[in-house]
Amino acid sequence: MDAQSFREFGKAAIDYLADYLENVRDKQVLPNVEPGYMRKLLPEEAPEEPEDWREVLKDMDRAIMPGLTHWHSPHFHAFYPTANSYPGIVGEMMSAGLGTIGFTWMSSPASTELEVITLDWLGKMIGLPPQFLSCSPGYGGGVLQGSASEATLLCLLVARERYVQRLHEKNPSLTEQELRATKAKLVAYASDQSNSSVEKAGILGSVPMRLIPADEKFQMSGSNLRAAIEADLKEGLVPCIVISTLGTTPTCANDPLREIAAVCSEFGIWHHVDAAYSGAALICPEYRYICEGIELADSFNFNPHKWMLVNFDCSALWVKDSRELVAAMSVDRAYLVHTQQDAGMPDYRNWQIPLGRRFRALKLWFVLRIYGVKKLQEYIRAQCKLATDFEMLLRGDDRFEIFTPAHMGLVTFRLKGPNENTNKLMANLQKSKKIYVVGAEVGGKAMIRFAICSRFTTFSDVEFAWNEMVNQTDKVFLTLPENATNGHF
Amino acid sequence: MDAQSFREFGKAAIDYLADYLENVRDKQVLPNVEPGYMRKLLPEEAPEEPEDWREVLKDMDRAIMPGLTHWHSPHFHAFYPTANSYPGIVGEMMSAGLGTIGFTWMSSPASTELEVITLDWLGKMIGLPPQFLSCSPGYGGGVLQGSASEATLLCLLVARERYVQRLHEKNPSLTEQELRATKAKLVAYASDQSNSSVEKAGILGSVPMRLIPADEKFQMSGSNLRAAIEADLKEGLVPCIVISTLGTTPTCANDPLREIAAVCSEFGIWHHVDAAYSGAALICPEYRYICEGIELADSFNFNPHKWMLVNFDCSALWVKDSRELVAAMSVDRAYLVHTQQDAGMPDYRNWQIPLGRRFRALKLWFVLRIYGVKKLQEYIRAQCKLATDFEMLLRGDDRFEIFTPAHMGLVTFRLKGPNENTNKLMANLQKSKKIYVVGAEVGGKAMIRFAICSRFTTFSDVEFAWNEMVNQTDKVFLTLPENATNGHF
Repeated sequence: MDAQSFREFGKAAIDYLADYLENVRDKQVLPNVEPGYMRKLLPEEAPEEPEDWREVLKDMDRAIMPGLTHWHSPHFHAFYPTANSYPGIVGEMMSAGLGTIGFTWMSSPASTELEVITLDWLGKMIGLPPQFLSCSPGYGGGVLQGSASEATLLCLLVARERYVQRLHEKNPSLTEQELRATKAKLVAYASDQSNSSVEKAGILGSVPMRLIPADEKFQMSGSNLRAAIEADLKEGLVPCIVISTLGTTPTCANDPLREIAAVCSEFGIWHHVDAAYSGAALICPEYRYICEGIELADSFNFNPHKWMLVNFDCSALWVKDSRELVAAMSVDRAYLVHTQQDAGMPDYRNWQIPLGRRFRALKLWFVLRIYGVKKLQEYIRAQCKLATDFEMLLRGDDRFEIFTPAHMGLVTFRLKGPNENTNKLMANLQKSKKIYVVGAEVGGKAMIRFAICSRFTTFSDVEFAWNEMVNQTDKVFLTLPENATNGHF
Repeated sequence: MDAQSFREFGKAAIDYLADYLENVRDKQVLPNVEPGYMRKLLPEEAPEEPEDWREVLKDMDRAIMPGLTHWHSPHFHAFYPTANSYPGIVGEMMSAGLGTIGFTWMSSPASTELEVITLDWLGKMIGLPPQFLSCSPGYGGGVLQGSASEATLLCLLVARERYVQRLHEKNPSLTEQELRATKAKLVAYASDQSNSSVEKAGILGSVPMRLIPADEKFQMSGSNLRAAIEADLKEGLVPCIVISTLGTTPTCANDPLREIAAVCSEFGIWHHVDAAYSGAALICPEYRYICEGIELADSFNFNPHKWMLVNFDCSALWVKDSRELVAAMSVDRAYLVHTQQDAGMPDYRNWQIPLGRRFRALKLWFVLRIYGVKKLQEYIRAQCKLATDFEMLLRGDDRFEIFTPAHMGLVTFRLKGPNENTNKLMANLQKSKKIYVVGAEVGGKAMIRFAICSRFTTFSDVEFAWNEMVNQTDKVFLTLPENATNGHF
């Protein structure tokens, strides 16, 4: 393909996406396809001869569109949002087009430096204490990861290696094999409300993740954490890292950071804060109360690619002492050495798991500049308001009970009575596919999560979702045996 | 930003990239900036108010361009290529615009299914045995990872967990803590010529990576591997995984797969093949001799994002038994359950480290269709030819010696005589910045790697590089003391 064809194809693709996003409200949020549908639509082998890009665009409509779940439909209320914005899309394309790989400073200085600068910008925007920023004295700094999963795993691995390093310093006579054996005693801690990726980090890092039972507010309390740590210490195990969550996946609960930090500090444990979803709200000062005590943490992560309009992937991680990352992650090779090492700019390959990395800071920079802080704040506030609106609608119908009130963009609820009612409602919603929500079971209670996800969502979309909820609830009670109706009829 | 502004901004960005790539030959491949340059050009905080996209595009020229290393300049001959093509760029943008997250089949059926299908296409294109493909009976299949680093780490972790699982099956009375302790005995193996990411996978997975000294052809021989394994077994250690490399980073050497597979099979060890760079050449049947014995491996990885014109990131991994991945990687949560599980399509979150994932198959599909197999083969062959051309030029000047002849797109060489000569030449080249090459030291010998990287590289660019090499070599011998000139003058 030559540059002229690229200009035509690229511009047609821009129009394709603009048309798609302008009309995404009218599409059914969940597709009707069955597993394996695409095999019937595409050939079994790649074509031998080049095909015209117009044919490929046509096949977008024929083969891809029918099987898409429309994450940016205003009727998408499942999980948490994944970001999408026009500046973010262009930023991603620009990054692909320049096609640099910024594993060392020298391999693409602009890529590294823009990341350092925009992560300082972002850190200031969310009120992060200066010791996490590159522009402050010390060893703090930010880095973009692909996902919160990677950020959590990275911190767990660094905490693990830090423990071994310190043990070796205290006992220089320990052999490598003896040091390795001590790793089998490490344990990690998080709330049982934490994201699946936190437990997975424990599996991957071979450090079992103790899932601390949350309290009645779905938070991991300092006292429950302490009890678990003390029990492990009695067994001769070694606490290594605690992962606190701001904005848990089931109910958007916030672990009390200061309380947890006190425990971590007492036992010398790494404290990582996973604010994957909720972190974006910290750009609004009125939400900063949730991260009270953050100055005591070792690392903090949130995903601008969730709720801050930067397309996936863009997960921001800050650490207080980047030397610990570098110590755990460095593998030096002659071909990676360059003349400007140690000149005050990071070689980001040592701040992450993989070697290669895209120029992800570009899309973050585009979004921050083209929206500006004020518009991003407005966006967060508007989304929170819509969740409250939905809560009000729920409160107006006494068949429903609020499980957790609107917090950030999430409200959770259930049908009064046995779980069967709520599960039936979920099944009805899944079948009708007019809106997309997911359920969960917390503390033995089935509930439904309703998250404001799309940037296109308005109050009339919330009403649309509410009407669907009412219709499907009517069907639940029409078909349930009388003794399960909880007296509504 | 509204859709209309996006249409304008997006199209301006398409033109920006087309202009950039059409003129990248004229830019100095390495930038002149010093670390910290960008802090002088950008404000210390994000803007409060929205900025016009035109201002951002202007700043691309003012702040970004001066600090770019131009990976797609035909004068870039460092590392290995990172891919860039017009269809790949548009595919990346399309993926960003649709903005789906395909962690389960239901979360975006098209995303999962296109990945399954295109990885079957690609597997067939490189002649992968059917047991690695989804379209064959059994549990084989392909998945896209972000990088070869992740693919290697993933396989190491799966091999580690498989070992523990099997041990538990044999000894059901072992406690969790006892099982954990056995992990401290695991060891992994790779050539000392393998990529830094392989050693790093060992560090991250807490399984020490034995770097087997390569033989005189820079290959890991079966006998050296066997000797290391037997020595470890005598120490009571447990061999867990062997990573073979096709196309090592220093010299593009290929480990002898069949020989290594025989050792792996004898000792029951997972055999992973990392063909990050060279794998793309397997689309040309004449190069398939390098993967003779691949049918005996457990997993195979190569990066279309290196040498097959799909923009980073797009790293293809195939496994023979995907159940082993799923067993090691699954963490189930109610909110991730969907009604179509177990219907023959994968939930790819269980095939990778993170939870989230982009719709990366789109760009692969665009590239495969818009180039077609034949054009991609032509491309690989043309790049190999250019490396051979450069070798011929080297052979015509008796100050140089070939370190390893052209293989794929790489040739390595040095100046005759002491390492000082070659190191001086490298320093001169780094200073003049007309071409970008990196050096390495292998077996005590300093050498320079010359890789054909850009898709724009032509024979006249190879001549340009050669002329620069001759000029800088002249300077080496002009400034070196007489006894170091090796008699050339």
